[in-house]
Amino acid sequence: MQHTSQDLVRRYWQAANARDWAAFAELLAEDIVYEVPQTRERVRGRAAYLVFNQTWPGNWEAELLRVVGEGKSQGGQAVSEIAFHVRDAHGVRTETGISFFEFDATARICRIVDHWPAPYAPPPRACDCIERF
Amino acid sequence: MQHTSQDLVRRYWQAANARDWAAFAELLAEDIVYEVPQTRERVRGRAAYLVFNQTWPGNWEAELLRVVGEGKSQGGQAVSEIAFHVRDAHGVRTETGISFFEFDATARICRIVDHWPAPYAPPPRACDCIERF
Repeated sequence: MQHTSQDLVRRYWQAANARDWAAFAELLAEDIVYEVPQTRERVRGRAAYLVFNQTWPGNWEAELLRVVGEGKSQGGQAVSEIAFHVRDAHGVRTETGISFFEFDATARICRIVDHWPAPYAPPPRACDCIERF
Repeated sequence: MQHTSQDLVRRYWQAANARDWAAFAELLAEDIVYEVPQTRERVRGRAAYLVFNQTWPGNWEAELLRVVGEGKSQGGQAVSEIAFHVRDAHGVRTETGISFFEFDATARICRIVDHWPAPYAPPPRACDCIERF
């Protein structure tokens, strides 16, 4: 059975939201590497990456907004954009998460690079062609 | 002649770096919409979007790090990750840019959503499985 890289990314987020760690682990390569370039954090290996996700604080849910992928999952890539809703003692807050997924030759996820772009004040611009929303 | 969405994104950044605004404009739909969710900025239309890029301050160059796309450009999507180097009076600084491209039925870019994830301090984590790089 062949799955596209997009299919596997949808399953990844479904399994994460369901806290179905067996299904989640099946999608991952043994030697997966997870990185957050903004904080220079890295997690190596499936076992560590599972703990990292299982211990994520708060009651969270990843709302999958879109997936862009190359089709083939073996050796392929895909990107997801999520609205990450976290309910904790401070209420509910939502962050944007962008994840680059790389797949190995057996269609398991071998690398994830996560970005968490946060709001910032618009910079000075040299044109008057910009509106705000 | 058919081009993949990845090809067109590569051309987009080549034309931008070359300041070849004729080639750049040819890739864009007349009704292109450009958005930066972090600042809630929006630019509408090819003419305005050209001015927006032509007036971008500093001596900049987009180093294309990767492109993930769906292959077909008509009605397709692609994502690029760039290292955006800007040389200005303060020296050279580099930002990470992630751009989601959407193509219309004629394979012109009709929507770009840009994200500029900036460094931040690593949050508290409930596991000891994280290294720093």
